[in-house]
Amino acid sequence: MPFSAGQEQDYPQIFEQIVRELIPLRGKGKVANYIPALAAVDPNQFGIALQTVGGNHHVHGDGEVLFSIQSISKVFTLTLAMCFEGDGIWGRVGREPSGNPFNSLVQLEYEHGIPRNPFINAGALVMTDIIMSHVPNAKEYLLAFVREISGNPKLQYDPVVAASERDAGHRNFALAHFLKSFGNILGDVDAVLDTYFHQCSLRMSCLDLARSFMYLANAGVSPISGRQIITSRQAKRINAVMMTCGLYDEGGDFAYRVGMPGKSGVGGGIVGVLPGDLAIATWSPALNPNHNSLCGAMALELFTTFTGRSVF
Amino acid sequence: MPFSAGQEQDYPQIFEQIVRELIPLRGKGKVANYIPALAAVDPNQFGIALQTVGGNHHVHGDGEVLFSIQSISKVFTLTLAMCFEGDGIWGRVGREPSGNPFNSLVQLEYEHGIPRNPFINAGALVMTDIIMSHVPNAKEYLLAFVREISGNPKLQYDPVVAASERDAGHRNFALAHFLKSFGNILGDVDAVLDTYFHQCSLRMSCLDLARSFMYLANAGVSPISGRQIITSRQAKRINAVMMTCGLYDEGGDFAYRVGMPGKSGVGGGIVGVLPGDLAIATWSPALNPNHNSLCGAMALELFTTFTGRSVF
Amino acid sequence: MPFSAGQEQDYPQIFEQIVRELIPLRGKGKVANYIPALAAVDPNQFGIALQTVGGNHHVHGDGEVLFSIQSISKVFTLTLAMCFEGDGIWGRVGREPSGNPFNSLVQLEYEHGIPRNPFINAGALVMTDIIMSHVPNAKEYLLAFVREISGNPKLQYDPVVAASERDAGHRNFALAHFLKSFGNILGDVDAVLDTYFHQCSLRMSCLDLARSFMYLANAGVSPISGRQIITSRQAKRINAVMMTCGLYDEGGDFAYRVGMPGKSGVGGGIVGVLPGDLAIATWSPALNPNHNSLCGAMALELFTTFTGRSVF
Amino acid sequence: MPFSAGQEQDYPQIFEQIVRELIPLRGKGKVANYIPALAAVDPNQFGIALQTVGGNHHVHGDGEVLFSIQSISKVFTLTLAMCFEGDGIWGRVGREPSGNPFNSLVQLEYEHGIPRNPFINAGALVMTDIIMSHVPNAKEYLLAFVREISGNPKLQYDPVVAASERDAGHRNFALAHFLKSFGNILGDVDAVLDTYFHQCSLRMSCLDLARSFMYLANAGVSPISGRQIITSRQAKRINAVMMTCGLYDEGGDFAYRVGMPGKSGVGGGIVGVLPGDLAIATWSPALNPNHNSLCGAMALELFTTFTGRSVF
Repeated sequence: MPFSAGQEQDYPQIFEQIVRELIPLRGKGKVANYIPALAAVDPNQFGIALQTVGGNHHVHGDGEVLFSIQSISKVFTLTLAMCFEGDGIWGRVGREPSGNPFNSLVQLEYEHGIPRNPFINAGALVMTDIIMSHVPNAKEYLLAFVREISGNPKLQYDPVVAASERDAGHRNFALAHFLKSFGNILGDVDAVLDTYFHQCSLRMSCLDLARSFMYLANAGVSPISGRQIITSRQAKRINAVMMTCGLYDEGGDFAYRVGMPGKSGVGGGIVGVLPGDLAIATWSPALNPNHNSLCGAMALELFTTFTGRSVF
Repeated sequence: MPFSAGQEQDYPQIFEQIVRELIPLRGKGKVANYIPALAAVDPNQFGIALQTVGGNHHVHGDGEVLFSIQSISKVFTLTLAMCFEGDGIWGRVGREPSGNPFNSLVQLEYEHGIPRNPFINAGALVMTDIIMSHVPNAKEYLLAFVREISGNPKLQYDPVVAASERDAGHRNFALAHFLKSFGNILGDVDAVLDTYFHQCSLRMSCLDLARSFMYLANAGVSPISGRQIITSRQAKRINAVMMTCGLYDEGGDFAYRVGMPGKSGVGGGIVGVLPGDLAIATWSPALNPNHNSLCGAMALELFTTFTGRSVF
Repeated sequence: MPFSAGQEQDYPQIFEQIVRELIPLRGKGKVANYIPALAAVDPNQFGIALQTVGGNHHVHGDGEVLFSIQSISKVFTLTLAMCFEGDGIWGRVGREPSGNPFNSLVQLEYEHGIPRNPFINAGALVMTDIIMSHVPNAKEYLLAFVREISGNPKLQYDPVVAASERDAGHRNFALAHFLKSFGNILGDVDAVLDTYFHQCSLRMSCLDLARSFMYLANAGVSPISGRQIITSRQAKRINAVMMTCGLYDEGGDFAYRVGMPGKSGVGGGIVGVLPGDLAIATWSPALNPNHNSLCGAMALELFTTFTGRSVF
Repeated sequence: MPFSAGQEQDYPQIFEQIVRELIPLRGKGKVANYIPALAAVDPNQFGIALQTVGGNHHVHGDGEVLFSIQSISKVFTLTLAMCFEGDGIWGRVGREPSGNPFNSLVQLEYEHGIPRNPFINAGALVMTDIIMSHVPNAKEYLLAFVREISGNPKLQYDPVVAASERDAGHRNFALAHFLKSFGNILGDVDAVLDTYFHQCSLRMSCLDLARSFMYLANAGVSPISGRQIITSRQAKRINAVMMTCGLYDEGGDFAYRVGMPGKSGVGGGIVGVLPGDLAIATWSPALNPNHNSLCGAMALELFTTFTGRSVF
């Protein structure tokens, strides 16, 4: 252990070193192109930002550029669903890795409408349905929550992306109707999908994300708002779900290479958490075949290598 | 964080408290009965032992009783395969959770003979095949290795269990021939299975196991033998594979409830690792429907609850 | 061969004998209950009717009672789709048995949105989509077609059943959106489903059905309207698809026991064709676990046994 | 109906016409190469032969050349198993098409060791196991049976092919052990496989095969030996199983294009049956991607087109 938790390192220098190492990966990978708004993003952007429990933050490159957080929002909806129903949510969703692509209907069919975990699309739809059964306007409620924990009151949904998601979202419509056929969506399918497409369209920067995830690095307390968002035990548990299920069908590889809980999105963002220590977010739009940011995952691998940090 | 890594707590008292809490679970679960030698084990036994990086150990109940380690041996074969071929092994086995029962042929067929990870039976057979391609007598080699890292020169295979495994092992024969049909077993199928059945039959106690796993808690160095078994980086990575794939189809649940890398066996043993801190082993033969020890998993959950420890 | 094709037998007596043999099956099986309009049907009804190429017909029991033909309509939509696009339809649907329940999404996912055959729901949705791309009002067009070939100008859709199908049709919505996500529905998903739910709701009697299917027994020519509906070769081919795919996941069993091409519906109807000879329809609402009419399938088995007829 | 069952046509001329139409297919397809003995066969060979219930036969091209019948033998083992146990066999094997490749373990796992039908490898292994439980020397028994029904006392197993099958048969070993793990092989796995590999290695010509299958065209009576092999009803039923399950994962296509019950083998042979009329066999070693003879299937399609014959 070359390093104690909480100890600060020369992050600016580490970020520069990471960027140098990423040069050979530039131009590789493929930007998500299932909707025009994502396909139009410049693939050469790269940002990184971290926030420590000690209260410092460091940003590099395009780390303050807003992008579509997509599936990273699933951590927020899991958190809110747990706030409302605690461990009760596990009757409607599992917490095992899926071993299948994130939007597969196959496993859902074999397992009778109980999604494998809250981070595949089907599971996130159930979380959204839970939130909607507790608050009248889930879209506003979620937005207020993310503004609070990021400390950024200007955060917005992207209506163009949300509308595109809807137009291109036949598979998500299929998933939602399929869940409904098993009785695992209680609300109106179209309303649940509308909220879901909006949460995916949230625009945030790496710094916004690093700050937002601090409650998971800080025993459930957001140092930004000072509020206890969830219990310490719940924070550990969400980290555990991120560790085993957070990276689509590549969670084992991410744990192996990076060694911390994380969550990715097809917009190219990845957030990682070192409990008791820091949250770190990267963004680079070009994806590997498993839908995770190519440079982003490598940046986090280099970060844990250079700092000697890992939960393992 | 109520507690710093490496700090000693009053383990004897914690063990007693755990045993008290387990009382309602007594008599529940079901002993593995696919071979007579396992079915005959008294289900009411319970042992626990831990070994710290500081050099202390604590044992409770049946923590020094020998039992069949079964799939826990897969950590040893992964370790030895990595010693021989490093990251080269990943061309022949994945490192993603399977999302399927541990002895499933389905996923193997869809993925063309590349087992999902080294901890499902198919993956372990490939690891055994790798070891056998490097040493003339893999059975003796593995035994010597486990004797070294446990510090117990008396450890033995159980020939009755090994023979029973062979007689009842039609599904493992099916897996091995299936791997061979994809070219992912290089050696003789019967010889690989013979080694495999022997490694499963190894008899160890909780204390033996806690000591053996110390190289994974101690940056690759076995404090028992003083030897660097694997690199620090490799130790982290094996911990990562245990975290995502170590508990059959219940890895997500174990991460959620217990919060540390672990490996279980159908003999009723489970070993957990808190990197930089300790290794802990429990044994109780009655299993839950996912083939993991019912009392053992609960004991480890209580351990992390009572001590406030977790990698998350 | 005790019997030449086209030869008339004493059908009224055979029908009576069949009804006697069915007595022990009365009260067994289960009426489809996924929509109220089907669940309310009296399970004890039984009808049978046949029409010969020679121009005779025979009806027994409830053979002129109207019922919901449900999936039997898939033969009509396949026929119309072939009229419009001939063998071109096979680029968008297969003609192999599915080996899976009729509304499975699993196979559709593995096979990238190409349904296995036109008689599973997904395949029928594609046929409906094809028809809708050729005629402005597919619902009226299909109804006119069925009135023509049955010789019954009073046939109607059941609007209550169609609406119920829609309300309960989450899985069909899921299928249609899933097909759309693969680009295998060209039209509007809701419009295709509306037509689909209507065709399932068609109310016909056994006699209507036996007459309607005569073009398949008579080399493509409907003896009712006198029109060549499809070519002789196409008639043979639709019979072939019925033989291998017409009875949900029980086609092999039906071929084995009954020995003629057939198509069933969850309303309890089954139609069979003896090419060059006759068409026969049975109706009894109580279903076996594979969604086929329990008494209806047995009645057809007895019919081929008593008459010595079969394509084999 | 341009043609009555049993009527003779100018078969020599039809055969010549078929061969002319096949010219563009020459050199296409791929000879089975999983064992050397099959891979070495000249792909340009083509034979065809038919035998009528009236007692005539016609042979063309390489129709008297011996080749490895492979899976066609599965019809013989089904027949013998039915002779021994009648409909009792259906407790251990289904009669539904598989919707999956012929040697898939997937379906077998989902369906708990009951093979879908007797014509996939797993099902044929169960049939072989049944025969072996009734006769002391199944290999000799089967050979005597085929010699009888073909009228060719010189037929032999090919020991080189049988040995090659064994050496390359890892997947069949996997299947057999898997069946054994479900308790659906009663005998010794190696002995069952030995018989199985021998039956696949049987060498017969098109004429031998057309003659051998006459009991299925002739209501259970072999006109060659004059013996009632099975009942008329059983003959129809075996034809039904061939129709729905006889062509690997291409049965629906064969029914559609050819329109008669048939059984193929990877040696390039296909046999078809027109009940009450004739049996016909083709041989051409180059296979299509579904493991059926490319020219053979086309020859049979042309045969039913030119003669206007079909069961539909």
